[in-house]
Amino acid sequence: MASYQPLKEKVAGESQTRGKPIRCRAAVSRKAGEPLVMEEVMVAPPMAGEVRIRIICTSLCHSDLTFWKLKEPPACFPRILGHEAVGVVESVGENVTEVAEGDTVLPIFIPDCGECMDCRSEKSNLCSKFPFEISPWLPRHKSSRFTDLKGEVLYHFLNVSSFSEYTVVDIDNITKISPAIPPNKACLFSCGVSTGVGAAWRTAKVEKGSTVVIFGLGAIGLAVAEGARLCGASRIIGVDTNLEKFDVAKKFGVTEFVNPRNCGDKPVSQAIVEMTDGGADYCFECVGFASLVQDAFASCRKGWGKAIMVGVDKPGAMLNFSSVEMLHCGKSVMGSIYGGLKPKSHIPVLLQRLVDKELNVDNFITHEMKFEDINKAFDLLAKGKSIRCVMWMDK
Amino acid sequence: MASYQPLKEKVAGESQTRGKPIRCRAAVSRKAGEPLVMEEVMVAPPMAGEVRIRIICTSLCHSDLTFWKLKEPPACFPRILGHEAVGVVESVGENVTEVAEGDTVLPIFIPDCGECMDCRSEKSNLCSKFPFEISPWLPRHKSSRFTDLKGEVLYHFLNVSSFSEYTVVDIDNITKISPAIPPNKACLFSCGVSTGVGAAWRTAKVEKGSTVVIFGLGAIGLAVAEGARLCGASRIIGVDTNLEKFDVAKKFGVTEFVNPRNCGDKPVSQAIVEMTDGGADYCFECVGFASLVQDAFASCRKGWGKAIMVGVDKPGAMLNFSSVEMLHCGKSVMGSIYGGLKPKSHIPVLLQRLVDKELNVDNFITHEMKFEDINKAFDLLAKGKSIRCVMWMDK
Ligand SMILES: [Zn+2]
Ligand SMILES: [Zn+2]
Ligand SMILES: [Zn+2]
Ligand SMILES: [Zn+2]
Repeated sequence: MASYQPLKEKVAGESQTRGKPIRCRAAVSRKAGEPLVMEEVMVAPPMAGEVRIRIICTSLCHSDLTFWKLKEPPACFPRILGHEAVGVVESVGENVTEVAEGDTVLPIFIPDCGECMDCRSEKSNLCSKFPFEISPWLPRHKSSRFTDLKGEVLYHFLNVSSFSEYTVVDIDNITKISPAIPPNKACLFSCGVSTGVGAAWRTAKVEKGSTVVIFGLGAIGLAVAEGARLCGASRIIGVDTNLEKFDVAKKFGVTEFVNPRNCGDKPVSQAIVEMTDGGADYCFECVGFASLVQDAFASCRKGWGKAIMVGVDKPGAMLNFSSVEMLHCGKSVMGSIYGGLKPKSHIPVLLQRLVDKELNVDNFITHEMKFEDINKAFDLLAKGKSIRCVMWMDK
Repeated sequence: MASYQPLKEKVAGESQTRGKPIRCRAAVSRKAGEPLVMEEVMVAPPMAGEVRIRIICTSLCHSDLTFWKLKEPPACFPRILGHEAVGVVESVGENVTEVAEGDTVLPIFIPDCGECMDCRSEKSNLCSKFPFEISPWLPRHKSSRFTDLKGEVLYHFLNVSSFSEYTVVDIDNITKISPAIPPNKACLFSCGVSTGVGAAWRTAKVEKGSTVVIFGLGAIGLAVAEGARLCGASRIIGVDTNLEKFDVAKKFGVTEFVNPRNCGDKPVSQAIVEMTDGGADYCFECVGFASLVQDAFASCRKGWGKAIMVGVDKPGAMLNFSSVEMLHCGKSVMGSIYGGLKPKSHIPVLLQRLVDKELNVDNFITHEMKFEDINKAFDLLAKGKSIRCVMWMDK
């Protein structure tokens, strides 16, 4: 694994570009499902409330793949994808005092304005100032900071657009972090690792000694496993139809495995209820199939079991539960977005646990490569060969 | 309202019947929907683990009405209905040490064995020793203690069967209470009041200053209102299509009203979201329509709103939720049976709050009458004219 040396001279020089457009390389998604085009683009200076960032490294998340393949809205082209990254502040727009040039920051797709009723509540991470949407624009001024060399507008993605050497992000989507954290680990906290670890820690509030079931052992499911381990779960049962994932998952603390195709005539939930003597305490759906949420619900122990929906199904997908089962069983169902984490207050806590070596993310990084090899990274993830591939801008 | 004097001489005399069958009056449900027949029946002595109780007074709950009208299983005839009552222990079966002759007790339809994994957990009230079912028998020996004078077996109901001067109940369904509590108030804690108050207190854990919505202002909905008031809710919004209920509900702390028929083109959930500036913190479904659970869910505030299902719909009724709404909204859905209360540990707490005049149940008792007038009580409840009608055995 590559080691990282902060580029001091570069940080010092960054203020020279302040207030001017920056010409740099970006990987542009010009047509659904076709290779990204590595080209030079113009990145306008940040407007009021915005921050321009030099990306250090970015990793590839499954949502990038989904929006790269998607032909219909909210997909749009040409777009700069990417939303897991870490960077250094190059310059800030008017009214930005929270970060300064040279600060190391995580851009995070959900905002945390700190002022609205949700941001002030300990119970919510759904900022009402800029309600979450898959917008082609930056949220505050509803416009793009990217153009190609012909002057055509390039769309933003998930408020981040990290597949570019420089990007502009709203200050509400920025969390300042310590520059001492290795960037290839830090960037994972922008989305995947936080989503999974948070789902166990904040949404489900997994308790010590409990039994956890995880449907789907992709990156998010593995991050749930790491979160459950961190919370002291004693049994972590992974459910997947792909047997190859079991060996990998062992490294993430998964203790037992169920292959739904090997349950004979039994529904997978019955197999789980039997092996857990009545059902699991927490069941996470990390695939994104509404029908699996029902399996997760059915796998929960009566009395207190919680089914947590982490995966994203298609718009319009419905969840169906038996009314009697909901009433008589004392179970509950809940959704979790970004693991229920409030970026500016919870990410520093998770990163401290990384520094303290309680949280371990080494095993998520299966590949590292140069930014210009990004299409290889797409290929690896699409084929299920990588968990996280980190792409370095400067190597 | 009648005042109550404990009948000392009767308690002292009760041991004379110990070990023998008792001949007494009961109201027998012989045919679906037909008037109960007031007749003499034989009540066998309690078997091991059981307790024979002399009922002081019993009240009528909506579930009695449901099972009186129901023609198909789990309805069965002839049966002794009734499950809200208070009584005095006449004698105990083998191995019963928790209560003794002369103790005042509440029979409660859900068991609390104190030994199983659920009873030992603070999170569950669903005893696994005798899983809840609408059985025609007592749970431990799967048999009846009732016969009519021709020797025909009379079935039990909800482990209680309180429409009889004497009944036999399992010790796991018995909670000892102070004899100083007025019986007409105490009996309400056997089912309705506890179910509603508990749903707010234990299942939802309503917080001070929160906004609560209650769908359906029957006895359970009004008990939820009393529970929400007790927990310090600042707004309690009642939803009902029957305008007459609004005047009554004010006495129970309901502060605002919504009639779904007066919302114009708007769904009732939209009207609630508007009047609460984004949705309520807790929404209770107390009618028993699966579709209203969805309205309750839609009326919850994003970020933290909880929809709590208290009403009982028909078996087979399904709950449907949009997968995207569940995932992106941070809300949850849960069911509540007997208000999530553990009878033996939580009922004494609620009764203490009654004694301390924090909890007020006077307004639930709209009618009191003699036991032999029970068919009038059925009529009043069926016509929606009573909240609770208390029937006294000795008056
Ligand atoms: Zn906010
Ligand atoms: Zn992502
Ligand atoms: Zn038990
Ligand atoms: Zn009842």
